[in-house]
Amino acid sequence: MNKGRLEAFSDGVLAIIITIMVLELKVPHGNELKDLQPLIPKVLSYLLSFIYIGIYWNNHHHMMHTVKVVNGRILWANLHLLFWLSLVPFSTGWVGENHFSQTPLALYGINLLMAAIAYFILQNIIIQSHGADSVLAKAVGDDVKGKLSPILYLFAILSSWYLPWLAGIIYIIVALMWLIPDKRIEKKLQ
Amino acid sequence: MNKGRLEAFSDGVLAIIITIMVLELKVPHGNELKDLQPLIPKVLSYLLSFIYIGIYWNNHHHMMHTVKVVNGRILWANLHLLFWLSLVPFSTGWVGENHFSQTPLALYGINLLMAAIAYFILQNIIIQSHGADSVLAKAVGDDVKGKLSPILYLFAILSSWYLPWLAGIIYIIVALMWLIPDKRIEKKLQ
Amino acid sequence: MNKGRLEAFSDGVLAIIITIMVLELKVPHGNELKDLQPLIPKVLSYLLSFIYIGIYWNNHHHMMHTVKVVNGRILWANLHLLFWLSLVPFSTGWVGENHFSQTPLALYGINLLMAAIAYFILQNIIIQSHGADSVLAKAVGDDVKGKLSPILYLFAILSSWYLPWLAGIIYIIVALMWLIPDKRIEKKLQ
Amino acid sequence: MNKGRLEAFSDGVLAIIITIMVLELKVPHGNELKDLQPLIPKVLSYLLSFIYIGIYWNNHHHMMHTVKVVNGRILWANLHLLFWLSLVPFSTGWVGENHFSQTPLALYGINLLMAAIAYFILQNIIIQSHGADSVLAKAVGDDVKGKLSPILYLFAILSSWYLPWLAGIIYIIVALMWLIPDKRIEKKLQ
Repeated sequence: MNKGRLEAFSDGVLAIIITIMVLELKVPHGNELKDLQPLIPKVLSYLLSFIYIGIYWNNHHHMMHTVKVVNGRILWANLHLLFWLSLVPFSTGWVGENHFSQTPLALYGINLLMAAIAYFILQNIIIQSHGADSVLAKAVGDDVKGKLSPILYLFAILSSWYLPWLAGIIYIIVALMWLIPDKRIEKKLQ
Repeated sequence: MNKGRLEAFSDGVLAIIITIMVLELKVPHGNELKDLQPLIPKVLSYLLSFIYIGIYWNNHHHMMHTVKVVNGRILWANLHLLFWLSLVPFSTGWVGENHFSQTPLALYGINLLMAAIAYFILQNIIIQSHGADSVLAKAVGDDVKGKLSPILYLFAILSSWYLPWLAGIIYIIVALMWLIPDKRIEKKLQ
Repeated sequence: MNKGRLEAFSDGVLAIIITIMVLELKVPHGNELKDLQPLIPKVLSYLLSFIYIGIYWNNHHHMMHTVKVVNGRILWANLHLLFWLSLVPFSTGWVGENHFSQTPLALYGINLLMAAIAYFILQNIIIQSHGADSVLAKAVGDDVKGKLSPILYLFAILSSWYLPWLAGIIYIIVALMWLIPDKRIEKKLQ
Repeated sequence: MNKGRLEAFSDGVLAIIITIMVLELKVPHGNELKDLQPLIPKVLSYLLSFIYIGIYWNNHHHMMHTVKVVNGRILWANLHLLFWLSLVPFSTGWVGENHFSQTPLALYGINLLMAAIAYFILQNIIIQSHGADSVLAKAVGDDVKGKLSPILYLFAILSSWYLPWLAGIIYIIVALMWLIPDKRIEKKLQ
């Protein structure tokens, strides 16, 4: 059972997710600068989600690099992750449509939280089937970032209703925290 | 004639099918929780179809693993399967739009039935061209699941008009029945 | 310069073309069989175009199999072909929207004609760069089907305004004529 | 860290970008030639952008061919390029919707300018990590085309408000200038 198709399928789904988000940017009928103004929150939410999907693709790329055996559990844990990521265009669109208002911001956080949990499950299943001495197990180590992110998402979800701007800032902080690709795996591979 | 492009093309089509279904979830204009409520049946039908497409990708992945020779008949039997699967976003959308009502549920079942038949044809053509001693022929064996599914779909289609909730449950049961990846092929390959 | 990415990119574009055509099948609001009736011409035009794109993918697959050297001219001749094929979802949608009426049927034929010419150009450029003794040159031979198709398309385009049903039948006949994959290349390869 | 998935993901995103642009060509309800007339500026802008994305794919293909080591910086510089290219369907749609009027033409130029800058950054990062003696460094050389394009885009953006037709002509000229694939890399590779 090779991992080639798993990677190809995941790449395909992630490439489509990242690109169909742009369909939420409906072409305005007017032809002046002010006609673009209502699109600004949509462009900003698109940019944030583009970075998040980029991070997932990036880390998925690194993680799959360590995989030697693909089994049914890994296939389904991967599909589970793709399911939550496939909802990102929807929650991104809702956030953008409503200028980062309260409930949409909370839903966006819930979506990110579920994706983070799905990634965590996938990571654990891969480690389980490759052993505690595997490259991934060593590279992940304490997995500080992986454990901190869900806590920050939870905090952002709760703050969405009281301090929506704080929730937005937390989502940006988590993205920045992950923007640095997983050096740990690169190091352990060498 | 290599199977690489057949797999790549199928992966591409399946990845697009699974992702464009999410376009049926139109972003609501309101920004409250109650604005999401009308989307619940659409999310549920999306989830079910996501699992079905995942199952097809999974089993397709396993089946293609046993293929050694690709010919024109296999290419077209594969396109035939992709045709029926490409209609799944439409029938899923219709089921979700109408809250799992009668005719949409029947059409959904017809779509699944046609895809199951197309898969059966593809499987038989591959077995024919690889011989009764091939890995796939041995792995499929009696093919209980493959023969039971169309019968259950037929039963669900008929019950759609009288007991729509039963049809829905049957579709879920068939999905669960297939969720377990085809261990038979994995075993025979070893 | 390898042909892997040329095939991967073409597969991607063809997979998307074949799948986004289904987005023209808008989910009806009603939930009865009669609500599906207006979709029948759209489903039929979708089926025909699905077969045409399938044929192009199939023959492209065969033709690329003989390619050894990829240069800039081949890359652009390939993009030229993909351009005309990318318009097929539009002309298919127009034919379906207007129940196979005159001008849409003619435009559909023009689209198929331009794609056939683009395929012919690509084939000739590949033959030129691989020599008259190459597998493709021998396999294509007189290229009866390749020369007959544009003539039939032209005839169908002209008949669209007088006998629209004849144009439709010609498009079906050309598709059937090509449905048989290019055995010539398979034979020459052996 | 292999470059296979980087190429596959980029191919996927570019294939989707090039194909979803066609969704801006909405199928008209009428069935006469005059119903197609409002689509002419949209088809023209689609054609121009199709060529631009084709050029980017082509040059990306050539550039990646010289890459031996993929690191996090290259991954993100590549995603940065894909981000700007993913906005091309939007700016293309706006130009087509408004018959090549002033502000849309300027935005189109800004989009092309940002993509050109992103490409330039990616190219420099690859050269940095492969050394001044690498194939790419030698092939790029003075990079006349790469430096001339942003200047021409800037000029076109400024002229959009005064002489919109000139901006359009400049975009066409830059495209033609790049249509010839990067022979430099092909030569250096031999």
